[in-house]
Amino acid sequence: MSDNISTGLQAQVLISALPYIQKYTGRVVVVKYGGNAMINPELKRAVMSDIVLLSLIGVRVVLVHGGGPEITETLKALGKQSRFIDGLRYTDAETAEVVQMVLAGKINKDLVSLIGQCGGKALGFCGIDGGMIKAKKLDSGKDLGFVGEIVDIDPQPLANAIYNRYIPVIATVGSDKNGQVYNINADTAAAEIAAALGAENLITLTDIRGLMRDINYPDSMIPEVKLSEVPGLTEQGIISGGMIPKVQSCVKALENGVKKAVMIDGRIEHSILIEMFSDEGIGTLFTR
Amino acid sequence: MSDNISTGLQAQVLISALPYIQKYTGRVVVVKYGGNAMINPELKRAVMSDIVLLSLIGVRVVLVHGGGPEITETLKALGKQSRFIDGLRYTDAETAEVVQMVLAGKINKDLVSLIGQCGGKALGFCGIDGGMIKAKKLDSGKDLGFVGEIVDIDPQPLANAIYNRYIPVIATVGSDKNGQVYNINADTAAAEIAAALGAENLITLTDIRGLMRDINYPDSMIPEVKLSEVPGLTEQGIISGGMIPKVQSCVKALENGVKKAVMIDGRIEHSILIEMFSDEGIGTLFTR
Amino acid sequence: MSDNISTGLQAQVLISALPYIQKYTGRVVVVKYGGNAMINPELKRAVMSDIVLLSLIGVRVVLVHGGGPEITETLKALGKQSRFIDGLRYTDAETAEVVQMVLAGKINKDLVSLIGQCGGKALGFCGIDGGMIKAKKLDSGKDLGFVGEIVDIDPQPLANAIYNRYIPVIATVGSDKNGQVYNINADTAAAEIAAALGAENLITLTDIRGLMRDINYPDSMIPEVKLSEVPGLTEQGIISGGMIPKVQSCVKALENGVKKAVMIDGRIEHSILIEMFSDEGIGTLFTR
Amino acid sequence: MSDNISTGLQAQVLISALPYIQKYTGRVVVVKYGGNAMINPELKRAVMSDIVLLSLIGVRVVLVHGGGPEITETLKALGKQSRFIDGLRYTDAETAEVVQMVLAGKINKDLVSLIGQCGGKALGFCGIDGGMIKAKKLDSGKDLGFVGEIVDIDPQPLANAIYNRYIPVIATVGSDKNGQVYNINADTAAAEIAAALGAENLITLTDIRGLMRDINYPDSMIPEVKLSEVPGLTEQGIISGGMIPKVQSCVKALENGVKKAVMIDGRIEHSILIEMFSDEGIGTLFTR
Amino acid sequence: MSDNISTGLQAQVLISALPYIQKYTGRVVVVKYGGNAMINPELKRAVMSDIVLLSLIGVRVVLVHGGGPEITETLKALGKQSRFIDGLRYTDAETAEVVQMVLAGKINKDLVSLIGQCGGKALGFCGIDGGMIKAKKLDSGKDLGFVGEIVDIDPQPLANAIYNRYIPVIATVGSDKNGQVYNINADTAAAEIAAALGAENLITLTDIRGLMRDINYPDSMIPEVKLSEVPGLTEQGIISGGMIPKVQSCVKALENGVKKAVMIDGRIEHSILIEMFSDEGIGTLFTR
Amino acid sequence: MSDNISTGLQAQVLISALPYIQKYTGRVVVVKYGGNAMINPELKRAVMSDIVLLSLIGVRVVLVHGGGPEITETLKALGKQSRFIDGLRYTDAETAEVVQMVLAGKINKDLVSLIGQCGGKALGFCGIDGGMIKAKKLDSGKDLGFVGEIVDIDPQPLANAIYNRYIPVIATVGSDKNGQVYNINADTAAAEIAAALGAENLITLTDIRGLMRDINYPDSMIPEVKLSEVPGLTEQGIISGGMIPKVQSCVKALENGVKKAVMIDGRIEHSILIEMFSDEGIGTLFTR
Repeated sequence: MSDNISTGLQAQVLISALPYIQKYTGRVVVVKYGGNAMINPELKRAVMSDIVLLSLIGVRVVLVHGGGPEITETLKALGKQSRFIDGLRYTDAETAEVVQMVLAGKINKDLVSLIGQCGGKALGFCGIDGGMIKAKKLDSGKDLGFVGEIVDIDPQPLANAIYNRYIPVIATVGSDKNGQVYNINADTAAAEIAAALGAENLITLTDIRGLMRDINYPDSMIPEVKLSEVPGLTEQGIISGGMIPKVQSCVKALENGVKKAVMIDGRIEHSILIEMFSDEGIGTLFTR
Repeated sequence: MSDNISTGLQAQVLISALPYIQKYTGRVVVVKYGGNAMINPELKRAVMSDIVLLSLIGVRVVLVHGGGPEITETLKALGKQSRFIDGLRYTDAETAEVVQMVLAGKINKDLVSLIGQCGGKALGFCGIDGGMIKAKKLDSGKDLGFVGEIVDIDPQPLANAIYNRYIPVIATVGSDKNGQVYNINADTAAAEIAAALGAENLITLTDIRGLMRDINYPDSMIPEVKLSEVPGLTEQGIISGGMIPKVQSCVKALENGVKKAVMIDGRIEHSILIEMFSDEGIGTLFTR
Repeated sequence: MSDNISTGLQAQVLISALPYIQKYTGRVVVVKYGGNAMINPELKRAVMSDIVLLSLIGVRVVLVHGGGPEITETLKALGKQSRFIDGLRYTDAETAEVVQMVLAGKINKDLVSLIGQCGGKALGFCGIDGGMIKAKKLDSGKDLGFVGEIVDIDPQPLANAIYNRYIPVIATVGSDKNGQVYNINADTAAAEIAAALGAENLITLTDIRGLMRDINYPDSMIPEVKLSEVPGLTEQGIISGGMIPKVQSCVKALENGVKKAVMIDGRIEHSILIEMFSDEGIGTLFTR
Repeated sequence: MSDNISTGLQAQVLISALPYIQKYTGRVVVVKYGGNAMINPELKRAVMSDIVLLSLIGVRVVLVHGGGPEITETLKALGKQSRFIDGLRYTDAETAEVVQMVLAGKINKDLVSLIGQCGGKALGFCGIDGGMIKAKKLDSGKDLGFVGEIVDIDPQPLANAIYNRYIPVIATVGSDKNGQVYNINADTAAAEIAAALGAENLITLTDIRGLMRDINYPDSMIPEVKLSEVPGLTEQGIISGGMIPKVQSCVKALENGVKKAVMIDGRIEHSILIEMFSDEGIGTLFTR
Repeated sequence: MSDNISTGLQAQVLISALPYIQKYTGRVVVVKYGGNAMINPELKRAVMSDIVLLSLIGVRVVLVHGGGPEITETLKALGKQSRFIDGLRYTDAETAEVVQMVLAGKINKDLVSLIGQCGGKALGFCGIDGGMIKAKKLDSGKDLGFVGEIVDIDPQPLANAIYNRYIPVIATVGSDKNGQVYNINADTAAAEIAAALGAENLITLTDIRGLMRDINYPDSMIPEVKLSEVPGLTEQGIISGGMIPKVQSCVKALENGVKKAVMIDGRIEHSILIEMFSDEGIGTLFTR
Repeated sequence: MSDNISTGLQAQVLISALPYIQKYTGRVVVVKYGGNAMINPELKRAVMSDIVLLSLIGVRVVLVHGGGPEITETLKALGKQSRFIDGLRYTDAETAEVVQMVLAGKINKDLVSLIGQCGGKALGFCGIDGGMIKAKKLDSGKDLGFVGEIVDIDPQPLANAIYNRYIPVIATVGSDKNGQVYNINADTAAAEIAAALGAENLITLTDIRGLMRDINYPDSMIPEVKLSEVPGLTEQGIISGGMIPKVQSCVKALENGVKKAVMIDGRIEHSILIEMFSDEGIGTLFTR
C-alpha cells in the first residue's frame, strides 16, 4: 500500500470506499477522455490507473478519447496546415486519413498499452470496427469537409469486449457505407455510446473545474444541474462557448437513458476516483 | 470516503491497492473466524466489512466460524455445565444439539445478518446442509462424546453460493449417515474446506500476533514459515500448546493444494485487509 | 419394493401414478409444514420421504416450516415464560433471539438432516440468508414485540437451490435493514414464498382434516372452495378461529398467482402423496 | 391412483420405490423391445407405460425395437415369400426396402404414437437418420443379401433427443455411404447403442423367463451370470440356439462399458418396472 | 470445381453469390418438395444437393415432402385400389396405415439417405414424432375418411434439429390424441410449419413454371403477386384448379408471418438455387 | 449472379463447391496478406470479397497483414529515410511509432472498412490489444532497433471475435511489458497466430506463383512440399533469399499443429477461392 500513510489508515480508506463500490459494481461507466489530462504523461497514467482500478472492482468502464493536439502535430510534420472553422477542424480527404491514422493507430493503441502497463486488459477500437459508428457529413451551416455526425451506433463489439472483461477504448472516427471516413466529435460520440450501452454514468474529463457561474471565480462552480435548468443557464450565458457542445452531450446522454452525466477537472490527479468515491463528487453533475 | 484524510490521498490509497486487487480477484479465500475478533462487536463489524469489501472487488470469500464462548453461555443458561478434556469440549448428545443450535442458528445467522448490514449478501450453512461435512467420532485416545472428525467434504453448496455471488458462512457441525451431529473443530474444517475449494489463501484470525519465538516478546514473531521448517519449530517448542492444532490446519491446507495459509491477529482492526493489501502482510505466513 | 403386496400390483400402482407425475413434473410446490406432523417422529419421517420422492420425480419442492412447541420448550429450559396475545407469541428481544436459534439452528437443520437420511439433498435457510425475507414490526392493534410482517421476499437463494436440485428448507424469521430479527408466521411466509416462486401448488399441513362445515362432524369437510366463496363462509362462521389466518394465506397465495392452495391433514401418513397422486385428493382445495 | 388398493397402501408403494428411483435417475437405460411383448396390444401398451413412467421420473430411456412378424406379413401381402437362412432373413434389395418401410414407417411410428398416448414424448429414428448407424454387408459364411453388421454408431441424434427430454425410438436399419440399406439385428444394435451412449443398463425383453439351466424347468432360471461364466455355460450347452446372439449382445454391451445387461420376460406385464424397482429383479442379469 | 468452366470464372460465380448468401444466412427456409422433381432420380439428387448447399452456407432448410405416386404404387402392390374424390385420396383406415408407412418409412428415409450421400446431415420426422402435427378429420363437404386438417403444430423437434445443424425432413401425416393417423396435404403442412418456425421463405416445387395468365403460354407467367391481388386473380380464373390449394398455402404462410412464398418449377435443375441466388428469381413470388 | 454466364451454369458452379465448403466449414483459416495484392485496389477488393465469402459460408477467417510500402511512404512524408539491414527495416524509436500508427491506424482500419463494404463484419486489432503479442528485441546478429520477435501469443481477443462471428484483422506490432512497441514480421506472426488458434490452414499471399525449382520457369513450381523435404530443397538452393523466412513460417505453423500451409500468388484474382475450392489448388502446399 501507499507508503506515506499508516496501513491502518489505508484499511480505513478502503473500507470507506465500500458503499461506492457497491453502487457502481456491474454498471457501465463511459469516460470521455481529452484535454490536458491526455497530454501530461503523469496525469495520463493516473487516469489509466483509475480506469484499471474501476475495472478490477467490477465497474464496466468504456474509454472514449479525442486527440486534437496530436493530429495537429502529425499534420504539421506531414507539411499540412490545420484549419479550423468555428473551432472545428476543417477535414479534407487527406486530413480525414491522418485523423484516422493518428487517433486509431497512435493515441488509441498507446492508451491500450498504458492500461496494460497499469495491470488492465484493453481492446482498442475505432468506429469503423464492426461498423460501430455509422456516420454522415455533419449538416452545419458551413462546409467542414469530412466532419461527421453519427447516424447509428452498433455497440455489439463494445458489449462483447465488456462481457469478456476487456476495457474497450474507442477512437471516434466513423464511416459511411462507401467507406468514407469521418472525424467525429468525441464528446458527442461518448454521449451516444453511453446511451447505446445503457450506461449508469458518463464522465467527461475537461480542462476546467466544471460549469462556473463566473469563469473567473473557480468557487462559482455549480455542483449540480437539472436538465430543466439548462435552457435558463444557456440564456444567462453561463453555458457558452466551448461549454455548449459539452453540455449538449451530457443532455443528450441523459435524454437517452444514461442516469448521470458529470463534467470533471481532468487536471486533478485521480479526479475520476474522487468523483465516484465520494458523496459530494467534484465537478458539475447533470441529472434528469 | 473517510473524513480524516484528504480525498486526494484517499484516491492514492485506492490506487495503491491495485496490484493486490489484481492478485486476488476471482480467487477463493477462506477466512477462519474465531476468538476475540468474534466477541468484540466493533471488531466483528470491522471483520465483516473487510469481507464485504473483498467480495465486492471480486475475491470469493468463504467464512468459517467457531463459537465456543456462546455455546458455553447457552449451555450455562440451560443449566448444563461445560466440560473440557485436553481443551476440547466433551460433547454428549444433548450438548451436540445445543452446539448445532447455537452455531448454526445463532452465531451463523448473526454473521449473515451483519454481512447484510455491511452491504454484502451472505448465505449461512452448516455441515449438515447438502451433506456438506460428513463426519465420524473423533478417534483420539479419550472419549470426547460427539466430537467429530471430517470423513468427506462436498463443497457443492459453497461452490454454488460463490458462483451466484453470495458469501457462504459456515458453522462447523457435521453429521454421519444416521443423522448424528458432531461438533467439528473450526480450524480443521476451514483447512479442509479451503482444500476442497482449491482456495488461494487460508486466513486464520487468532488472538495473538502470529507464531512467536518467545511468547513474551511480540517482536519475536516469525513472519514466514516453510512447511519444511514446521517439524523443527515443533521440536524446539516454538510451536506448542494451542498453536499446535492451528499450525496443523495450516499444514494440512498447504499439503492439499492451498497456496498460502496465514495466521493473523484478529484483535487488530482490518487485519484481513492489511494482510492482503500489503507486501509485508501481518502475522505468520505458512508456505510450501 | 413394499413387502406386503405383490410386485405385479406394485408395478400397477406405479403406473397409476403416471398422470399425476406428468402433471407436477418441473413445477414448484411449496409445502407448509407444522403441527402434529412435525412432532410425531414417524409422521415426520413420512413427510420427509414424501418430499424426497416428489423431488426425485422432478417436482421442485420447497419446505417452509414452523416450530412453536420447540420454541416454547427451549424458552422454558432457559427459564423464560412464553406469553401469547390473541394466539400470537409476544416476542421480546431475547425471545426473538431464541426463536431464530431454535427455528434456524435446530428444527431447520434437523429437517435438512432427515431429508438427507431419506436420500434427498436439502439446504436449510432462514429469511435472514441472502436478505430473503425483509420484515418490519407487524402492524396489528396490539404490541406483540418483534412479531414481523413481510415487506419483501427475494427468492433468489431458493431459486438457485432448486436449480441446483437441492430442496430448500426455510425457517420463517426475517430481518429489517438494521438487522433486527422478527418472528414471522409460517403460513403467511409460505404463501408469499409460493407467490414469489410462481408455485403451482401450496400445500399446508394442519391438524384437522380440512375446512369443515361443522367442526364436530369430520364428514362435513368441504372438498373445494373458490376464492369467491371465502367471504360467505367467513360470514357464516365456517371459517373462524385458527382457520382464519390459514385460509387467508391460501387466499393470498392464489391472488398472487399460485394455481392451487390446499389444506390437508398432516396426521395422515403420506397425506402429501395422497393429495398429489389422486384425483379426489384429501383436505380442502382452494382455487381461483 | 389404482382403484383396487387403498390410497394409503398406494402411497407406501410409491415410497418403497424411492431407493430405486434414486439409483436410476439421470441414467441412460436402453430397452430392446421385441417378441410377444410387441405383438400383444395390451402388453405393448404396458411396456410403453413403463417407459413413459421411467422417463418422467428422470430415467433417460432409449427404445430399440425389432419387428420380424410385421415384415413377414407385409412381404406376404406384397406377394413376396420370406426366406430364412440359419434363422436370419435373406434380404434381397426389394426386401431391404420393405424392411426399412415397415420398421421405420410403421412399427417405429406406431410406438412413437403409443408413447404419446401414454403421456410421453417420443421421436422415431432409424439408423439412416443423421447417419446414425453406418453398416456393411454382414460377413458370415453364407450370403444373406443385405443383412448388415454395424461399422460405426454416431449417437448424436439420440443424445440430442435425450437432452431435450424426448424418448428416442430406433428402428434398426443402417446404411453404407452409397445409401444401400441393411437389415440389422436389433439385439446387436441395442447393445452397440447402449455402449455408445454409456448406458447404465441394457434391458432385453424376450419370450422366455431368462437363461435356464433346463429349458423345461422354469425354476432352473439363472438369476445372475458373470462375464467370466459365459464361456463355461456355452460349453455346457446352457447358452445355445437363439440364446447365443442375445447373450452375445449382453456380453458386447458389458465389454463396452454398460454396467448391467438383463434379459427379462416381456410376456409378464410391467416386467421392466419389476426388474428396475426391486432388489431381486426378474430374469437373468449379466454383469462384469 | 466444375470442369466445364475456368477456375477464375468459377471464383467469380462464387463471389457473385455473396449478397444472396448474406441475405439468407441464419434464416429458416421451408421447401415443399413434390411432383416430378420427386420422381426423376436426377432431379431428386439435384434438389438434395441444393438443400445441402444451402444448409452448409448457413441457411436453416426444412424439407417437407409429399409422395402420392409411391403411395398409389404400394397400395396397388398390396392389391388395394386408390380412390380419389375431388382430387383428394379417399383414405380408409387401412390406407391411412399404408400412407404412414410409405411416407414416413420409405420416401422420408430415402430423402434423408440421399441428403447424407450429398454430404448433408438430415433427420427424418413425421407429424406423429413428438406430437408435432395434431390433426383431426378434414371438415369438407364429402367424407374422405382419414384425410386430416391441422389442429396444432409443435415445432420443437424441428427447432431442436435445426439448432443442432441437422436438416429436418418431414412426412406430413399427423395424429389425434387417440393415435388415429391422418393423411395431411403437404402444401398446407409446409405452410403451417413455415409459419410455426417463423420462416423467411416458403419455396414450393411444382410441375409448372409458376402462376400463368394463360396456361398455354409459358411466357404469361406472373413473376410477383401481392396478397391483395389474389382475390382478383381467382375471380378472373387465373388461379384455378390445382393451383387453388397451392396458392392458398402461400397465402396462409404469408398471413402467418412468413416473409415470402414462392412457387417454382421443380423440373428445372437447381431451380431452388436459381430462385434464391438471383435477383429476378424464377417462378411466381407471393408477398404481402 | 454473374452476368456473363447462364444461371443454370452458375447453379452448377455453386453445387460443385459443395465438397470444399463441407471441408472448411467451422475451421479456422489464417490468411497472411501482403505484397502486390495489398497495393492494387482491385486485387485488394477481390481478396476482401474472398474473405467475406469464406466467412459467410462458415469458415473462421483471420486476416494478418503487413504494410511495408505504406510505412516507407509515410516515413518519407514525415521527412524520415527508411533504412534496411539484410532486408529488414531498421526501426528506431520514432520509426516504431510510425510503424504502429500506419499499420494499426491506417492499413488495418482500411481493411476493416473494405470488409464492411463487401458485406462482412471485421474487427481490427494489433498485437498491443489485450496484450495479444508479447514481444522482445529480435535476437539476430545485427542491431535492428525495435524489430521484435514473439515471446508469447494470447489469442483470446481473436477467439472472442471469431466466436461472435467477426473477422479479426491483425496488424503485427507487439509490445513488451514496459509498453515498448516492436515491429514484427507478418509472416512469422501469421504462423504463430495460426498455431495459437489451432488453424486448419495458413494461406500466405505472395508475389510469385509458389516455390519454383527455377525462378525463371514458372512451370517449375513445386505443387507440394513435405516438411521432410525442406532441408534438402534449402541445400539445393531452391528455397533461398526472400523465400527462406516465408518457408520457415510455414514450417513453424505445421510444427505447431496447423494442418496445411500454402503459399499462393496474390496477384491472381480470387486466388484464395481457387486454392480452397479446387482439388489441385494453386501455389505450393506445405504439409507434414
